[in-house]
Amino acid sequence: MTNLHDEEQHPAFVGLSTYLHLPFARDFDELKASGADIAILGAPVDMGVVYRPGTRFGPRAIREASYLTASRTLYHLGLDVDPLQYMKVVDFGDANCPPSDLQLSHDAVKAKVAEALEAGTLPIVLGGDHSITLPSATAVADKYGHGNVGIVHFDAHADTGESGYGGVLIAHGNPMRRLIESGAVPGKNFVQVGLRGYWPPKETFDWMLEQGMRWHLMSEIETRGFDDVITDAISEALDGAEHLYLSVDIDVADPGFAPGTGTPEPGGLTARELLRAIRRIVGSEVHLVAMDIVEVSPPYDSAGITAQLAHRVVLEAISALARKKADAAGE
Amino acid sequence: MTNLHDEEQHPAFVGLSTYLHLPFARDFDELKASGADIAILGAPVDMGVVYRPGTRFGPRAIREASYLTASRTLYHLGLDVDPLQYMKVVDFGDANCPPSDLQLSHDAVKAKVAEALEAGTLPIVLGGDHSITLPSATAVADKYGHGNVGIVHFDAHADTGESGYGGVLIAHGNPMRRLIESGAVPGKNFVQVGLRGYWPPKETFDWMLEQGMRWHLMSEIETRGFDDVITDAISEALDGAEHLYLSVDIDVADPGFAPGTGTPEPGGLTARELLRAIRRIVGSEVHLVAMDIVEVSPPYDSAGITAQLAHRVVLEAISALARKKADAAGE
Amino acid sequence: MTNLHDEEQHPAFVGLSTYLHLPFARDFDELKASGADIAILGAPVDMGVVYRPGTRFGPRAIREASYLTASRTLYHLGLDVDPLQYMKVVDFGDANCPPSDLQLSHDAVKAKVAEALEAGTLPIVLGGDHSITLPSATAVADKYGHGNVGIVHFDAHADTGESGYGGVLIAHGNPMRRLIESGAVPGKNFVQVGLRGYWPPKETFDWMLEQGMRWHLMSEIETRGFDDVITDAISEALDGAEHLYLSVDIDVADPGFAPGTGTPEPGGLTARELLRAIRRIVGSEVHLVAMDIVEVSPPYDSAGITAQLAHRVVLEAISALARKKADAAGE
Amino acid sequence: MTNLHDEEQHPAFVGLSTYLHLPFARDFDELKASGADIAILGAPVDMGVVYRPGTRFGPRAIREASYLTASRTLYHLGLDVDPLQYMKVVDFGDANCPPSDLQLSHDAVKAKVAEALEAGTLPIVLGGDHSITLPSATAVADKYGHGNVGIVHFDAHADTGESGYGGVLIAHGNPMRRLIESGAVPGKNFVQVGLRGYWPPKETFDWMLEQGMRWHLMSEIETRGFDDVITDAISEALDGAEHLYLSVDIDVADPGFAPGTGTPEPGGLTARELLRAIRRIVGSEVHLVAMDIVEVSPPYDSAGITAQLAHRVVLEAISALARKKADAAGE
Amino acid sequence: MTNLHDEEQHPAFVGLSTYLHLPFARDFDELKASGADIAILGAPVDMGVVYRPGTRFGPRAIREASYLTASRTLYHLGLDVDPLQYMKVVDFGDANCPPSDLQLSHDAVKAKVAEALEAGTLPIVLGGDHSITLPSATAVADKYGHGNVGIVHFDAHADTGESGYGGVLIAHGNPMRRLIESGAVPGKNFVQVGLRGYWPPKETFDWMLEQGMRWHLMSEIETRGFDDVITDAISEALDGAEHLYLSVDIDVADPGFAPGTGTPEPGGLTARELLRAIRRIVGSEVHLVAMDIVEVSPPYDSAGITAQLAHRVVLEAISALARKKADAAGE
Amino acid sequence: MTNLHDEEQHPAFVGLSTYLHLPFARDFDELKASGADIAILGAPVDMGVVYRPGTRFGPRAIREASYLTASRTLYHLGLDVDPLQYMKVVDFGDANCPPSDLQLSHDAVKAKVAEALEAGTLPIVLGGDHSITLPSATAVADKYGHGNVGIVHFDAHADTGESGYGGVLIAHGNPMRRLIESGAVPGKNFVQVGLRGYWPPKETFDWMLEQGMRWHLMSEIETRGFDDVITDAISEALDGAEHLYLSVDIDVADPGFAPGTGTPEPGGLTARELLRAIRRIVGSEVHLVAMDIVEVSPPYDSAGITAQLAHRVVLEAISALARKKADAAGE
Repeated sequence: MTNLHDEEQHPAFVGLSTYLHLPFARDFDELKASGADIAILGAPVDMGVVYRPGTRFGPRAIREASYLTASRTLYHLGLDVDPLQYMKVVDFGDANCPPSDLQLSHDAVKAKVAEALEAGTLPIVLGGDHSITLPSATAVADKYGHGNVGIVHFDAHADTGESGYGGVLIAHGNPMRRLIESGAVPGKNFVQVGLRGYWPPKETFDWMLEQGMRWHLMSEIETRGFDDVITDAISEALDGAEHLYLSVDIDVADPGFAPGTGTPEPGGLTARELLRAIRRIVGSEVHLVAMDIVEVSPPYDSAGITAQLAHRVVLEAISALARKKADAAGE
Repeated sequence: MTNLHDEEQHPAFVGLSTYLHLPFARDFDELKASGADIAILGAPVDMGVVYRPGTRFGPRAIREASYLTASRTLYHLGLDVDPLQYMKVVDFGDANCPPSDLQLSHDAVKAKVAEALEAGTLPIVLGGDHSITLPSATAVADKYGHGNVGIVHFDAHADTGESGYGGVLIAHGNPMRRLIESGAVPGKNFVQVGLRGYWPPKETFDWMLEQGMRWHLMSEIETRGFDDVITDAISEALDGAEHLYLSVDIDVADPGFAPGTGTPEPGGLTARELLRAIRRIVGSEVHLVAMDIVEVSPPYDSAGITAQLAHRVVLEAISALARKKADAAGE
Repeated sequence: MTNLHDEEQHPAFVGLSTYLHLPFARDFDELKASGADIAILGAPVDMGVVYRPGTRFGPRAIREASYLTASRTLYHLGLDVDPLQYMKVVDFGDANCPPSDLQLSHDAVKAKVAEALEAGTLPIVLGGDHSITLPSATAVADKYGHGNVGIVHFDAHADTGESGYGGVLIAHGNPMRRLIESGAVPGKNFVQVGLRGYWPPKETFDWMLEQGMRWHLMSEIETRGFDDVITDAISEALDGAEHLYLSVDIDVADPGFAPGTGTPEPGGLTARELLRAIRRIVGSEVHLVAMDIVEVSPPYDSAGITAQLAHRVVLEAISALARKKADAAGE
Repeated sequence: MTNLHDEEQHPAFVGLSTYLHLPFARDFDELKASGADIAILGAPVDMGVVYRPGTRFGPRAIREASYLTASRTLYHLGLDVDPLQYMKVVDFGDANCPPSDLQLSHDAVKAKVAEALEAGTLPIVLGGDHSITLPSATAVADKYGHGNVGIVHFDAHADTGESGYGGVLIAHGNPMRRLIESGAVPGKNFVQVGLRGYWPPKETFDWMLEQGMRWHLMSEIETRGFDDVITDAISEALDGAEHLYLSVDIDVADPGFAPGTGTPEPGGLTARELLRAIRRIVGSEVHLVAMDIVEVSPPYDSAGITAQLAHRVVLEAISALARKKADAAGE
Repeated sequence: MTNLHDEEQHPAFVGLSTYLHLPFARDFDELKASGADIAILGAPVDMGVVYRPGTRFGPRAIREASYLTASRTLYHLGLDVDPLQYMKVVDFGDANCPPSDLQLSHDAVKAKVAEALEAGTLPIVLGGDHSITLPSATAVADKYGHGNVGIVHFDAHADTGESGYGGVLIAHGNPMRRLIESGAVPGKNFVQVGLRGYWPPKETFDWMLEQGMRWHLMSEIETRGFDDVITDAISEALDGAEHLYLSVDIDVADPGFAPGTGTPEPGGLTARELLRAIRRIVGSEVHLVAMDIVEVSPPYDSAGITAQLAHRVVLEAISALARKKADAAGE
Repeated sequence: MTNLHDEEQHPAFVGLSTYLHLPFARDFDELKASGADIAILGAPVDMGVVYRPGTRFGPRAIREASYLTASRTLYHLGLDVDPLQYMKVVDFGDANCPPSDLQLSHDAVKAKVAEALEAGTLPIVLGGDHSITLPSATAVADKYGHGNVGIVHFDAHADTGESGYGGVLIAHGNPMRRLIESGAVPGKNFVQVGLRGYWPPKETFDWMLEQGMRWHLMSEIETRGFDDVITDAISEALDGAEHLYLSVDIDVADPGFAPGTGTPEPGGLTARELLRAIRRIVGSEVHLVAMDIVEVSPPYDSAGITAQLAHRVVLEAISALARKKADAAGE
């Protein structure tokens, strides 16, 4: 493995931008040899969006968001743990996604995630638009068994559309439906959190109900309180499955906290709520095996705060894993 | 009526930007013939602002904010209703507001709103700066009777100034005072929600008290809770009047949620609070006859989130009306 | 035909944004009935770009760029002509381009251009990325005869790539090659102006030479002077063909004049040079039958100057046609 | 006079922003007592614009544009002169322009310019939109005699409209016509440079011809060369008048050099051409008595380069005056 | 004292930008003669930042943020008081901070704050990066006695780093440590509020504990409620000291409310929480003797909302002081 | 050497951003082993700027500017050469420049450049502010002999100030003076091109004359023509020295072409002029041994065109070297 950055302390703006300036594994062999627990990888895709594009630059922006680098100590104040002491994290680069062909891009994402899994790591995929959850979660289900992986899905939108404009089947509005149809992830293993707005239509929710999907609208969250909803979500998440895939569309956060996204939907989570929920879910008894954070669109993110929030979603998850490991070790 | 857009599904970026890509009524006859319940109309005015201009581009930005179009099903997740199934909505275009002359612009707004009312629709006016509430609410009071229309007014600022810089009487700081002075809307029929900051002066509040105006400061909202305040506002709103005019200055929301406005005032409502309040008020027993959403300034809205929020304020109101109608129909 | 806007003077920010606030023809019948000479139509596509997306919003931005509307007199100062007095121009809306599927989008563009041609108009296509010249020019060649249409192509890039990343054949780097391969427009009928930079590779230029293509690098323009090069281009343009298709990639202009584009290439034309060249070519003896202006990307155009320049490219062409017609009429 | 800033060297970002951090004269008495040759004053007005507003923030942006301060030596490299050694310049603050009332704003501008003239200074007015040339040049003509002041007017637009939208007579499209009609500045004393685009209509040019106005289109400049045109302009400028008023609309420059303006018109002057022309005209034998620089709109000037260019227009003029004075003194 | 602005009402965009358009004291003598209670002064420094610079333009942006000017009545709605009726506030300009030398800049800040104190005023320092708290609080401790001044410090970061990149001791990550080491402010007199994220390392917190520092993480605030935490903070603030220094890093607010800052950390306070906390602390029995508001970075603040929030932090503090004074006077 | 990126074609937005996605040499040994002709290295420094900061992000922005990657053929159209076929180029990363300490940053730059030279490469330094030419050119002079290296310096500013604000000796306004004073590069070996504006003062030019420095103002360039001036510059460049250091401050270009810089000075070179000059100088008989491109400030470069231009300055130089090598080889 190529260890690009770890030999000395340097500020965020110095050097190539791997995630947190962590070591870079250029291929499967390097990744495997690294003994990494977690592989960060990018899925620079935006051909699936129906409105504002730009997420192809999302992985780069998230990588560059940090003002701290792994060559300095990272210490999670709230969890009292250094995440990188317990979790070895490596940057595995990007899937080579050709622009102008969404299917080829998905093939590349699926292959890259499969490689990360094969190397024994937990892949964290930096999107890209939400269509990439289709190849990413498929690769995960292929590894751990169709029907054996649950998905907790944070999003303003259910992404279970039958088809998009022009009858398009593969786009950022329908990856969850495709996953159910293929059998990779049965409907009963989905829990969606943060839905709001005016889409999809009622017929789609009827279909979702038939599939056994569970979801929690923002209106429920406002009425019942977010902590209770998350408690439910954790208990609903697996339903017979052994493993968890966590998919976070940054537009689950209110546009005030995440303006740089393609289809912003006012009335969402605060950054505090989102980060707390990530910590609770990942820190619970569930067995996280993969994760994605999608829909960061840098051209609409003038102050970079959306990329910052996405970066924290990733790092909170890693920290929660580290905390669990430390607890298990009695530390 | 010219039906511009409804024949086929198309994405938000295709075609001319009527509100939600709804049909366009180019004049009174088309509007009347359409049988519409609601007329969306623009008041592109910014000569009334005391600080940052740009609201003349507000109507265009709000129209373009939606990433869903009415040619697809709109389904309000929280209210379980398709708003457009119950409410026929038409885009009635803009009042022809000449730049450089605020009075001529106001004349055009008043005439346009009057036409919409005459055609039997509920006008929803997209501002423009808040000065346009003067002609708009005057037209409404002329129709429904002076003293017979109450105003619920969401705003950081009371807009009851005696006069502005240079003694100017017509600007965005004083429309509510002019409405009271003209007798169109008596002071006792005003309820203001979300006031904060350092203006107007105490003498103005003394005058407001004399007029019987009611208001709810953000400090009251923080202390008592927003839901209780809204409950009060609903009961105070009419006070003998039969009809409601809802006026929403987007700066009632905190600048974090609505940066693209002329006189941002930190410490305001969240998007969730605002949208919930709109749903509750419009969904209550009050009889809404007109509405405006003002002070969206696109030059200061780099990610377009302010226009998105304003768009939702409109659509939440339409959805709440649809919900009421569905309830009445037992659906 | 629906005449949206022509009854009264109004400023640019009032009303729906057709091009120059011109009348809108919603379908083929309206267009045909209008007796229009020119049809403006949008091709909101950006799935073909290899770098920065955003051109799906190009047609909207170009339509909104004008601060003059056709309801006021337009008078071209340099050509001493009112373009709209001699050329009847109608806005024909957008091709219904579904996001996420480039082929479907191209099909829609081709059909829309074919309709405009069938209605007897000269189509002016507002892109969109440059891939749309493939369906657009194909429709034109289908109408006027394969081999009977020449293309003058302003661009920083030759767009004659064999294939793009991942072997993709349809994208914004290869429409000209596909047109030659299909026989719609033979290589000898291409004249390219403004090429510079580091792409395509030498092998591609060898292929271009074999096809009989002609091109004029910026380095030639700097050495010989632009006026001489344009004189040559006009004489080379047709080479046996009777009709001209003019394709203008806004990135032929230097990024200083056109920052809002996907693949900016420093060292290009000034706005003055470009507009002057358009006037000369369109005003020459050639028979212009169609035109496109592509690659305006609004997310990268903070002050809107790229859309302004694209708008002028269109209006200079219309004005030059008007001047020719006036000259022919002895006016 | 209040000498705010001159005691010590400090960087541009330190301290209050007078023009070049020069001393500030808060009222007529201080200005008169200062013995200043030149008074910089702001006219923060944007109610006259027909398209994009924002020029009310122009004076502030121009004052803040400089990265050099007068407490350091300013040395004009091309003219070999320290402008402030020969010309005493004072910042006279802003006319107190109330928003929402264009006439009151004009009254304030006229009074402020009159004070500067009365104090014996040459006023340089920082706009604001171009409507402010009406009160400003009127004050100058009142001082030096109607018909005794010529105007060299750099602009993309002639600003001689009969009236604007809604029949408005006072706006940024017609100040020159109002000046001619009032007799303050006869048509024959106008020379306009840089006109282009599609406005005003031919009838207006016919009227201009009747008034004896002279103008130089960009197309003439491109054909004849700019230096020759400027030579002509200088000789045409006065035509019997003794004094010169120089009015520079920043949109005479191409939008590539001046994006931050309300009605950008592609195809204009380069910054080099504009600055060189200012030096030549002011440095010629004409007797400059006042000057304005207008139409800088900061909300559309993300990198501040338009304000920078406007600042240089002012400083080049001051430097040219200094060079003349030095020459006269044989230095 | 030079009274620049107070003679007449004028809008925010007219005139030089002192804070709230208040009178300007150009030197110590003017400040002392003014009898001011409070001196606003700028510390335009950004050499101490480790990530995104730009805070050198912070003082200017905060001064320009207000859309109300002190020449109009300011009336705090929530506190029912006109802050300027009870507190005489003067703008004391900026410390003359040379770029490129942080030590010289700190010397200038210390001297300027010392002058303000010597003149009998309460200095409110507009940063600038957080490194300026070192010279500013040192000057305050020198005046009131080392160990006799407590600091309530709002921040996402503890700023108690041992050293920065390259072993640098003076930067924005370590001013609090330097203050403790110098003895100016003992550790036990620090209360930090709002800490979160991944820095500083655990060893630093151990050191902080040894020093007797107190801090309240965001996770504590979320669990216990902010009001209770603030109650504690007030009681912990002084611990034997008689005076309070309030230091507010704007990044204590969530990036949604304060995007324009150098090291944004998601998960922070809302604007409402922050402003309420300021009112409570300053309005409590503590004796505030100085205050700073730091880390506003205008290049990352496209809508200016961060500067608006910082401005309100200052004005809420002044209002709370006024309220206390009014209460003491029985008004 | 770590070969990060060269194995397959991929678009610009995929993968880590080395310059042109070229291989990365992480240390001296890898660089030496690579056999590279040219080493690209970053100097992320902005503590030397007197006005707008941000250049610390310059190296990253220039690396990311390219939309072509070295894994595709690069072919210089004007020079008919593939630059990377003749010149082996490697990305050597960044000097580890600690923020808050300019001297430590300079030490790091000097050491990094020295390493690149020691490894036998021609270093191309991506700034950073112009102060970094002091350590960079010193390292080059140390290698090739003091007095044996000439500097051609493109800039709006002479950067020969005696000292900056506060007497600071090391900043971006004085590196050239320090180089002369140290003897590393005698004054007679400097040729400056593009100077304009109002700085430095005449005394500085007198000093420069004494040192034997040569310079070419923009006013000379406008009068004589740029090609003639460049011919002179080439002949003056060496004056007894054997080697050339080329230093390009991006602000030599007009702000229209390079808005994203700290101290923009209107009236500069066009992009075409600058790129042509680079080609001519590097392609001449001079022996280029090092180069820097400085003052790109991304926070002020909203469309990224300044970084694009800087990238081309580098690539034009490499291409000119390749052309010379090909010519020498008779290819």
